[in-house]
Amino acid sequence: MKNHIIGFTLGILLVIVGVDELVPAMMDYGVNNPNYEDFLWCSLISMFFGGVLLFSNMNHRHSMTIKETFALTVMAWLVISVFVSLPYHFSSMHISFTDSVFEAVSGVTTTGSTVLSGLDSMSHGLLLWRSLSQWIGGIGIIAFAIVILPFLQIGGMQLFQTESSDRSEKVMAKTLDVIKAIVQVYVALTIACVLAYYILGMNGFDALNHALTTIPTGGYSTHDASFGFFTSSALQYTAAFFMFISGIPFVLYVRLLYKGETSIFRDEQVRAYCLIVAGVILVLTIWLTNNSQFGLMLSLQYAVFNVISVVTTTGFATTDYVIWGSFSASLFFFLTYLGGCTGSTSGGIKIMRLVITFKALKRQFKTLLYLNGVFTINYQGSAVTKDVSIAVLSFLAVFVTANVFLTLAFCFLGLDFDTAISSAATSLANVGPGISAEVGPAGNFANFPDAAKWLMCAGMIIGRLEIMTLLVMFQRQYWQP
Amino acid sequence: MKNHIIGFTLGILLVIVGVDELVPAMMDYGVNNPNYEDFLWCSLISMFFGGVLLFSNMNHRHSMTIKETFALTVMAWLVISVFVSLPYHFSSMHISFTDSVFEAVSGVTTTGSTVLSGLDSMSHGLLLWRSLSQWIGGIGIIAFAIVILPFLQIGGMQLFQTESSDRSEKVMAKTLDVIKAIVQVYVALTIACVLAYYILGMNGFDALNHALTTIPTGGYSTHDASFGFFTSSALQYTAAFFMFISGIPFVLYVRLLYKGETSIFRDEQVRAYCLIVAGVILVLTIWLTNNSQFGLMLSLQYAVFNVISVVTTTGFATTDYVIWGSFSASLFFFLTYLGGCTGSTSGGIKIMRLVITFKALKRQFKTLLYLNGVFTINYQGSAVTKDVSIAVLSFLAVFVTANVFLTLAFCFLGLDFDTAISSAATSLANVGPGISAEVGPAGNFANFPDAAKWLMCAGMIIGRLEIMTLLVMFQRQYWQP
Repeated sequence: MKNHIIGFTLGILLVIVGVDELVPAMMDYGVNNPNYEDFLWCSLISMFFGGVLLFSNMNHRHSMTIKETFALTVMAWLVISVFVSLPYHFSSMHISFTDSVFEAVSGVTTTGSTVLSGLDSMSHGLLLWRSLSQWIGGIGIIAFAIVILPFLQIGGMQLFQTESSDRSEKVMAKTLDVIKAIVQVYVALTIACVLAYYILGMNGFDALNHALTTIPTGGYSTHDASFGFFTSSALQYTAAFFMFISGIPFVLYVRLLYKGETSIFRDEQVRAYCLIVAGVILVLTIWLTNNSQFGLMLSLQYAVFNVISVVTTTGFATTDYVIWGSFSASLFFFLTYLGGCTGSTSGGIKIMRLVITFKALKRQFKTLLYLNGVFTINYQGSAVTKDVSIAVLSFLAVFVTANVFLTLAFCFLGLDFDTAISSAATSLANVGPGISAEVGPAGNFANFPDAAKWLMCAGMIIGRLEIMTLLVMFQRQYWQP
Repeated sequence: MKNHIIGFTLGILLVIVGVDELVPAMMDYGVNNPNYEDFLWCSLISMFFGGVLLFSNMNHRHSMTIKETFALTVMAWLVISVFVSLPYHFSSMHISFTDSVFEAVSGVTTTGSTVLSGLDSMSHGLLLWRSLSQWIGGIGIIAFAIVILPFLQIGGMQLFQTESSDRSEKVMAKTLDVIKAIVQVYVALTIACVLAYYILGMNGFDALNHALTTIPTGGYSTHDASFGFFTSSALQYTAAFFMFISGIPFVLYVRLLYKGETSIFRDEQVRAYCLIVAGVILVLTIWLTNNSQFGLMLSLQYAVFNVISVVTTTGFATTDYVIWGSFSASLFFFLTYLGGCTGSTSGGIKIMRLVITFKALKRQFKTLLYLNGVFTINYQGSAVTKDVSIAVLSFLAVFVTANVFLTLAFCFLGLDFDTAISSAATSLANVGPGISAEVGPAGNFANFPDAAKWLMCAGMIIGRLEIMTLLVMFQRQYWQP
């Protein structure tokens, strides 16, 4: 069969999902919640399907064509979402199929939008399953960004192609080493985050869950009040710190820790990221101090936490920043698009593309002044070709276009303009909350019509797969032999 | 002196403004309105300053550097706006300086946003002056698009460079011939429009004024109810027709009428323009028929008029389409950006750029599928270079960025999000109305804080000058010798 490799990989992923489902099963068993049986059944189902796919495709080729790579990527996220949704649907809560898939997609894409409320009294197993889905989705997206994206050259990602464009066995082995190291960093950061949260006053369960959703910049919480449940400023600053460092390319940590390379401190993307975040926090703090009763210190705390949460596309909230006024609402709306660095778990446009866009525009203005001049752009010391500029600018255009049509579709389904445009943005950028009363930090997506929930799912997956990975499959050429 | 040519040209333009001011002076004198004296004084002032500039720079060079071209373009719109504002400020209505400049800028940029109400009882001279300012602004922008833009290569306009990039005397003479022919077409269309309006039931004054603001896709009306004052469907369809044909490149009419070339029917931009407008009208008509009590015929009439009005960036309204629901509001919001064809009087992104963006994205998707393939884009049969793609995509990026910062600034000044984002869009695209209750088709900009009015002026001029013409002057390189 032609697609052995796709079936084989999907099989592995489903087995992983099945094994993961044993964790909440154990959790529920430990607290004598009969829900553990549901998890066991779901685990069995996932492992069964995974096993069948695995063993029937043992005899696979080792190489994939580019079209197969697109197909695998898209199918991986779709199939995993469906299997991750099963424990919600078959739990004692009898969550509808639509809501279960929504919650699963929002989990594995590390978005963090939710249709569930009453989290504070929900079974621990289900809460842990939500958090775990983000944690798995997070490491999945880093692997995707390192192994597959540069190969697919999406949105200027060929810039990171140095090692992984070559698909020889030797290079693949090297890439696998990098991924192993990244997983170690990811696990280590998660453990550090659990400990920090625990020491600073969370109970063990909350510490675990919030760490599992902080490091993948996911944003699921075990409380309806999100991170605002924890009023300790030490906890909030700690969470901001872990969100912030999770927005940095993980490969830079690997280089720092395993090879002693200090490139992380000279990385253009990281610098721009620090600068943008610091700048926005400064502006918002000053504005809040002058336009609220919070005072300087509380303004700073709110600004630090919520700006970092939205820019890294985590989506935790410590307060309903939408009701501060239209300036903060619109600021957070536009921040929704930014995203952290490429090669991190964050979504959105991402800093690398903003940096290249900024440089391309500078170049464009220069060209206008000196018509016969030839100006080159550099990124990290190497020249940015015109093809890369076009790829990055095209990415922006597709992002905006997707946003426009998603907004129109939401409005067509009866949502108001603010809810529609910010839901479109927050799903495509995998952030979580929107900026209207209904879907803002204090709201959720429970009252969306089913069709709108499915559109949200589409938006989250399109966004998570860097927009073009999925849309390319709608091209006529994709289906031509 | 170095800038003789700039002073000379500004002098000519001011003399033209002065002469134009005699028209409303005669109008007011004819109806015994003492306001005619104000117009005479303003006319004298404009002609005096114009004359001084003209005569002190008689001895000018005939060529301009590229920086001087940018400076002239920007200064022309700024200086004319100030002089056009004088009759408002010094009229018996004692309109504030800010409001006068707003109304003047909105006029000469053919935007059509207004801070004035009580139009129905305003002096005829002032109403005519508003309309005239749009009519002059309209022909000004076509000349700008033909003579200067291709030379400046803004946003892909080098595509239209075939004739006018060469600045030799012979080519300039030929360009002047084209402009003369365009002025003839412009005048002829205006006369046809006046007659059509008059025959279909407008009084002479209304027919003249609305024709003067239809052809330049400006949108000033002599009634607070805008074009909705005229309930005749024949009049509304006629206006839609004239707005529509004013969104087509005027040079194509010249080719058709003077040279018998039928390129207008094969022009890619014109085709896309027809297709987009027809498609949107179809969607809106179906939606309105199903979601209102209007019935098919009235839905069609509303859709035809208002879609064409917004896409051509005219900004007339026959009804408050914002209250139909969020789908129509968001649809009109996004339509605000489109604009008609390049080389017409309409603003916005413009169809040529949308076509090239669409093709660039198609190409991008193909490139993703066939990594080693080389794909070229054609526009009107000639290849679109990568530089042109970058220029067009950069234009979009700058447009969106300007929109973001203008929205934030409006919110900072206390406007709500919908008002802010749609005011930013409508000013940059030179359309007229926004989509909130305050600034929608039934509202106006009178209650904006002064700072927001000045920002609107900045947005309108930045938009009218294709964004980059003005922003380029903020580059460090511009001011280096």
